[in-house]
Amino acid sequence: MRSSRLDSGTKRPQGELALLRQIRSRAAHAPGLSLRLGIGDDCALLRLLPQEELAVTTDLSIAGRHFRLDWHPAESVGHRALARGLSDVAAMGARPVAAFLSLGLPRELTTSATRRKAWVERFLDGLLALAAAHKTPLAGGDLSESPIPFADIVLVGSVPTGCALLRSAARPGHLLYVTGSLGGSAAALARLAQLATVQPAGSIPQRIPKKLVTVLAPQLYPQPRIAQGLVLRRRRLASAAIDLSDGLSTDLTHICQESGVAAEIDADLLPIHPAANLAQALNGGEDYELLFTAPPTVRLPHSIAGVNVTKIGRIVPSRRNQPAVTLITPQGRQPLIPQGWEHFS
Amino acid sequence: MRSSRLDSGTKRPQGELALLRQIRSRAAHAPGLSLRLGIGDDCALLRLLPQEELAVTTDLSIAGRHFRLDWHPAESVGHRALARGLSDVAAMGARPVAAFLSLGLPRELTTSATRRKAWVERFLDGLLALAAAHKTPLAGGDLSESPIPFADIVLVGSVPTGCALLRSAARPGHLLYVTGSLGGSAAALARLAQLATVQPAGSIPQRIPKKLVTVLAPQLYPQPRIAQGLVLRRRRLASAAIDLSDGLSTDLTHICQESGVAAEIDADLLPIHPAANLAQALNGGEDYELLFTAPPTVRLPHSIAGVNVTKIGRIVPSRRNQPAVTLITPQGRQPLIPQGWEHFS
Repeated sequence: MRSSRLDSGTKRPQGELALLRQIRSRAAHAPGLSLRLGIGDDCALLRLLPQEELAVTTDLSIAGRHFRLDWHPAESVGHRALARGLSDVAAMGARPVAAFLSLGLPRELTTSATRRKAWVERFLDGLLALAAAHKTPLAGGDLSESPIPFADIVLVGSVPTGCALLRSAARPGHLLYVTGSLGGSAAALARLAQLATVQPAGSIPQRIPKKLVTVLAPQLYPQPRIAQGLVLRRRRLASAAIDLSDGLSTDLTHICQESGVAAEIDADLLPIHPAANLAQALNGGEDYELLFTAPPTVRLPHSIAGVNVTKIGRIVPSRRNQPAVTLITPQGRQPLIPQGWEHFS
Repeated sequence: MRSSRLDSGTKRPQGELALLRQIRSRAAHAPGLSLRLGIGDDCALLRLLPQEELAVTTDLSIAGRHFRLDWHPAESVGHRALARGLSDVAAMGARPVAAFLSLGLPRELTTSATRRKAWVERFLDGLLALAAAHKTPLAGGDLSESPIPFADIVLVGSVPTGCALLRSAARPGHLLYVTGSLGGSAAALARLAQLATVQPAGSIPQRIPKKLVTVLAPQLYPQPRIAQGLVLRRRRLASAAIDLSDGLSTDLTHICQESGVAAEIDADLLPIHPAANLAQALNGGEDYELLFTAPPTVRLPHSIAGVNVTKIGRIVPSRRNQPAVTLITPQGRQPLIPQGWEHFS
């Protein structure tokens, strides 16, 4: 790695500017209602509607931790990086307003010797396709050469003041729901690991065959539940909400801790993905479904914007020395220890 | 590097949560006028005043590119990471509202075998001290283990709608000014390099002696010009503005490009830092002073909030095939090529 800033007196050519220009031209949007000024100044300028407040989240994607260059196609890495941020916005019942991308990349991922696209172009293809699907302009960010590839995504959303869905609003008696199905992402990851062991390192095709894409989609192209979060908030269907990024056992524990409550899950009710097992559904993470609570008086629809909604348990009072989350199976009750993903483990 | 998410089935202990709890307790602020909800939910919630718009910026600090673990004390790395973001907010004439920190660190920087503070604690000391000085709460972020240390800082600021200082508002005839002095940061960096060559690698004291801190302060603890930016905007003293992060030659070229103008600098007028030379003042970067333009009818004070303001040149019409920036010395005129910092160079 060269460290040009730290080697005083080095003359530096136009590398970053060229990549920045490329991103700027691809991110070009007519400044709209919310985005007044995009890439090209010291800050982007955003304008909210009156009576709205701001929801802001940042999410890291680091090679070897959140993705693998030899398992995830570049388009998937870009998609997943943005999906992490959009999913947090969805969990607040907020509307995405703008995204920011801080990107650290080894030089070889920014250039292409052949006529094929450079890795970074395919990364942007994936990211910008998902951004367009959710009408979320890429409004700014930062770029730097880095010995390992990583992306930090910032999502700015907006929500009517005082109406955001919080982790802290679950109350005993409320029922527990999830959107979609659980464990599909972990099952697909296990399939990717399998593919890697039967093929020599690095030989997984850059473009995964279509048949496999469907099987692997929950891992490669997870869908953030923006539309579902908006409906839950607008129709006042949910009390508390969180997105399932780290796994049901961990994320439900977060709700319990922030709300000062406990929870029971009925294993029989879990909408387990057809390719997944119970452990993957409980601890797999990266499903990016919404986990939410609702008072028992609320009638939940069976599906919202085309995605199933399933009751999986209930909120109960917290008791000293009792586990926050209990799993109820035909064999009995057992504590569900958070086994989702944690860094610095 | 372990990649726990990618090794399915690994049980993960509470490492990240412990560090998160530490940051959360240190960042604890009573939710104020702007920050409604800080660390601990899917997003932070911020509220602006009516008639304000939002200024958002992200800035990377990567080991080996933006700092060196063996040159910069941990407190300086934290200070500098936040200063980069605050300086962008200052350049818009905006008020900082909240900061977000995405942090990737090798495990050894998060733990301490002895009673001394872990590197990450000292990093937070530096970051939070500067945040407190500018009344900017740390409102959220992300954490991950990473083989190389890096930080991505997000700054959210606010500014009355339509009043932000833009790079694109310089017009021919406007005069060119800078705050403070130029080149001090590059001169201090050269001094750090010198210290490194006369001492065995890694032996630079973790706590730099006080005498040296003063000399090295422009590099280790640069001061973002928030107060000056606010005065320039509120008293309508500036037309265009940018912060000097990449060096005068590069940042002035940005103003010229965004405004469609050219510029002349009088070398004799430059407020060169006593420890610096002309090249460092022109191309050094990381001074985090404000470079701004003002119509000739505006009377600028000699100093703003205790920091000198110096006229250094003027904006002129852009001419085809002419350099954007011309340096005028007693020996004549010469094109000033952008030689400030660029990544992917």
